[in-house]
Amino acid sequence: MDTLKTKPADIEVGVVGIGLMGSSIIVSLLASGHHVKAIAPIPNDLEGAEKRITEHLLACSQTGLLKDSVSSCLNRLDISIEYNRLSNSSLVLECVVEDIDIKSQVYKKITDVVPASTVIASNTSAISITLLQKLVSIPERFIGIHWAEPGYATRFMEITCGNVTNSRYADWVFNLAHYWGKEPTLLRKDMRGFIANRLMYAVYREIFYLVENSKTTMDDADKAFRYDVGSWITLMGIFRRIDFTGLADQKEIFKNLFPQLSNSDNVPGIMQKIVDGNGRGIQNLYGLYSYTSTEAKEWEDAFAAFNKDIFLLASLHPAPLSEKERVSA
Amino acid sequence: MDTLKTKPADIEVGVVGIGLMGSSIIVSLLASGHHVKAIAPIPNDLEGAEKRITEHLLACSQTGLLKDSVSSCLNRLDISIEYNRLSNSSLVLECVVEDIDIKSQVYKKITDVVPASTVIASNTSAISITLLQKLVSIPERFIGIHWAEPGYATRFMEITCGNVTNSRYADWVFNLAHYWGKEPTLLRKDMRGFIANRLMYAVYREIFYLVENSKTTMDDADKAFRYDVGSWITLMGIFRRIDFTGLADQKEIFKNLFPQLSNSDNVPGIMQKIVDGNGRGIQNLYGLYSYTSTEAKEWEDAFAAFNKDIFLLASLHPAPLSEKERVSA
Repeated sequence: MDTLKTKPADIEVGVVGIGLMGSSIIVSLLASGHHVKAIAPIPNDLEGAEKRITEHLLACSQTGLLKDSVSSCLNRLDISIEYNRLSNSSLVLECVVEDIDIKSQVYKKITDVVPASTVIASNTSAISITLLQKLVSIPERFIGIHWAEPGYATRFMEITCGNVTNSRYADWVFNLAHYWGKEPTLLRKDMRGFIANRLMYAVYREIFYLVENSKTTMDDADKAFRYDVGSWITLMGIFRRIDFTGLADQKEIFKNLFPQLSNSDNVPGIMQKIVDGNGRGIQNLYGLYSYTSTEAKEWEDAFAAFNKDIFLLASLHPAPLSEKERVSA
Repeated sequence: MDTLKTKPADIEVGVVGIGLMGSSIIVSLLASGHHVKAIAPIPNDLEGAEKRITEHLLACSQTGLLKDSVSSCLNRLDISIEYNRLSNSSLVLECVVEDIDIKSQVYKKITDVVPASTVIASNTSAISITLLQKLVSIPERFIGIHWAEPGYATRFMEITCGNVTNSRYADWVFNLAHYWGKEPTLLRKDMRGFIANRLMYAVYREIFYLVENSKTTMDDADKAFRYDVGSWITLMGIFRRIDFTGLADQKEIFKNLFPQLSNSDNVPGIMQKIVDGNGRGIQNLYGLYSYTSTEAKEWEDAFAAFNKDIFLLASLHPAPLSEKERVSA
């Protein structure tokens, strides 16, 4: 643990799981200068992985997100089905499905081959880090690193400690994340739903309540959120927005409105019905909205394109520095 | 009422209140081709109004948001303190402070000079349209038209009926809003907090709860919302996001997480304390964050610049059309 290196070029990272998310994380790590050992936990995953990663790297290169050439990035990548390739990795990131049994098997295979000093991380967005930590030998080295898709073109990253995570590892990952181009948050106490997700669940609870009570429609709610909240959120976040819009008025509205908000504990009927009918959203074309396969593809493409643009837009608009930050910058 | 015109060039609009918001709304109306009668309810408001409007028009022109020349827009504008200038306006928009007594006086002055067929609207974001409507003679013609700042470079618009609003006027305003470059929502039943605001209050309730219970910090919450939610909200809204991220998983998380969300009815202690200490946010440099006057100015400028960019970005990324929309497009 005394040998924690701080520069990506000196740090080999293992990634277990090379699906959609794993692949885009690998691209981010390669773009940041790491050597990467990618492990396919199921042989099928190998198929198309290198092609997918190469395509992402080319896209990065075209957007100006790549300092090295595509080929020099690929030279630092090793894709395999053999876990023992991880034996020199300082950090191993698990990106497999949100299934505790499968994750548990993966952790066993990782800890069988890595030294005690290797930090092991999960990209989970749904399972408690404290819970997952219990499945790992030397649990102090386990941590949550939650990426947003696509990993190479998003600034979001939630780093989450479990109850027994050594905070020195947390600080190390937090510092590394800046090399990955992230604006990371560090949650020293595990919390169900993390931050951004949890806040969105408060929105979900309220909006289903309004739609189920015919106060508005899904279309209108989506439109209002896109064009109202979308017009400021990337610049200023939540608390600064309150400062911006009249703090005293807001307090009065809190007083009047909080008692009217939904306090429901229950899964909304609309959601339950769709899930019971095997709706899986855009994946199987049946969700809260319905999709043709052409539309689903168009949404995937639109999201990829938008994400690239908002990433660049956010770079053009770093929030103004505070005096304190200005002094230390 | 049988003579409702549909083209901006044929429709004179009155705007009462030419502060920050009123001015930017006037610019949007001029840019859309309307003749505009601007009324300063307090003589002080006249000061600097034409200069402010001209500056906004120049900015619009530079961004390519203006079809006409700045001078031809200004030729269609008349600024005055005399309400009787409104006598030919088909629509009068009230943009004064959120104070029921003041609004009531303004409505009286408007209805004294306009014909019975003139639609009267409020830009309120906080007061019930049903309540305000009671203050207006012929209340059927009263409606809420809630703009986002700056009025000429935002797509958000919530149109809200009061209990007795004639829906034909609502449809008329809804159609007009498209000429103003808006993506309007039409709420046929008045609702406290409208849509976007109300959903954000659900976020506010939860985030104050988390911060007050030391689960996260204001900085981290702002960062997570900026970079996570910001990376998709402008493209897809809420329900489509759920479709996109795995509907069945989401349902499970709803079940686990809803019972853990804050159900508080109370104003958060942090807010109460700041408001009691006369904190007014960025207006008086003391809010949830504190600001120097330089920083406050930088935030104002950053918001104006960001807003212009996200407006243009949103134009580049209209959500993919549904099959139904494709057929009728």
